[in-house]
Parts: sequence; structure tokens; C-alpha cells
Amino acid sequence: MKSSELYQFGEEIAWTYAGEGVSRKVYGSDDQLMMVVVKFEAGAVGDLHEHPHSQVTYVESGAFEMTIGAEMKVIRKGDGYYIPPHVVHGCVCLEAGVLIDSFSPQRSDFL
Amino acid sequence: MKSSELYQFGEEIAWTYAGEGVSRKVYGSDDQLMMVVVKFEAGAVGDLHEHPHSQVTYVESGAFEMTIGAEMKVIRKGDGYYIPPHVVHGCVCLEAGVLIDSFSPQRSDFL
Repeated sequence: MKSSELYQFGEEIAWTYAGEGVSRKVYGSDDQLMMVVVKFEAGAVGDLHEHPHSQVTYVESGAFEMTIGAEMKVIRKGDGYYIPPHVVHGCVCLEAGVLIDSFSPQRSDFL
Repeated sequence: MKSSELYQFGEEIAWTYAGEGVSRKVYGSDDQLMMVVVKFEAGAVGDLHEHPHSQVTYVESGAFEMTIGAEMKVIRKGDGYYIPPHVVHGCVCLEAGVLIDSFSPQRSDFL
């Protein structure tokens, strides 16, 4: 199974542009699992989209108006969410912050 | 596929005892993926152990002396790591903090 290094040091990973006001860093991964850190400026939009991966997320900081399928909620530091495969989701960043996303299987489109 | 609710609100999830000075909250999950937030007091020990799940982790806060297989490193806020299935790992918490763990498949022993 192809995988990342065992350790990731945040300062050694470059931010990748992921849309206006949105950037990401890919952390640990193997074929079946991947962790990604996504930083949003206030007002940035994560466009509605869907993918075949399961996703779980933890809000490390900031505030977001999150939409998952038909359910919209405001989430803040310490909250989280689950995206089933192929369910449309997106967000608007209300206060600048960081989301910790994990996907299964890995997002090979991020490598 | 059995899964968690779509949204998790941190203040609504009780901490579960997970060893002396260690507690956890289970966030989003389905059969193939699970996110778990683990809080350590300074000096607390995550005993060496192994499991069949792949694991990726992000350090939300604090500092940890982490051992994965034969590799020991000190990791801090913004760092991360990857644990391949069945590789022995453990940590000592140097400064109180929080780890964001994800597992594939889910840790059914945590439900």
C-alpha cells in the first residue's frame, strides 16, 4: 500500500491554492485514508460539490455556514461533521478559520 | 451503511475516560471512517499499542513525544502523523493538548 511519510511537520508543508481565499495542506495518507488541513479567509466559499469518498471534519478554528444535502448549520471551533459519499456539500466562511478534513478512500486528486 | 449524524457539536458530546489524564470524544463516522478527538493532560501517556486500522492524526494543540515503530519524534501544534495498520505506536504528552485522530475502517470498539 502506497503511503505518506510517518510524520508531517506543518511548517515544512506548503499551502496549495484551493480557490479564492482557500488553501490546503495534505497530511498523512495511504490508499484508504487521507487527512487534509484547509484554511479559509473570512467570506471565502467552499463551492457545493460531491465526491465518492466518505468525509469527516473537525473545526479547528473559525466559524462556517455549512450545507450538507438539505441541512444548513453554523459550526464553530470544536464542532464537526460527516459527509456520506456523493452527498452535495459546501460552506461559507463566516470567521477566518481552519477545517481538519479526513477522507476514505484517499483523495488521489489531491496528490 | 451505518453512520453518525451529519453534524457534531462539541459541547454536546461527553468526554469518555481513555486512561489516566486522557479522554476522548467520537465525532463523525461510518463503517469505513471515524474521527476522534483525544485530550491529554501534561505527563499523560498513550500506551504503546497496535490495531488493524490505518490512522492519521493532526496536533490541534500541545506537544507530544510520539513513537511510531522505531521512530520517535517531538510533535507540536500543526504537525501530524500516519500510522500504518498493525504498527506499534504510543506517546507521552509533554504539554497538555489535543490530537485529532482519524481511522479507517471505523474504530467499532469506540462505539
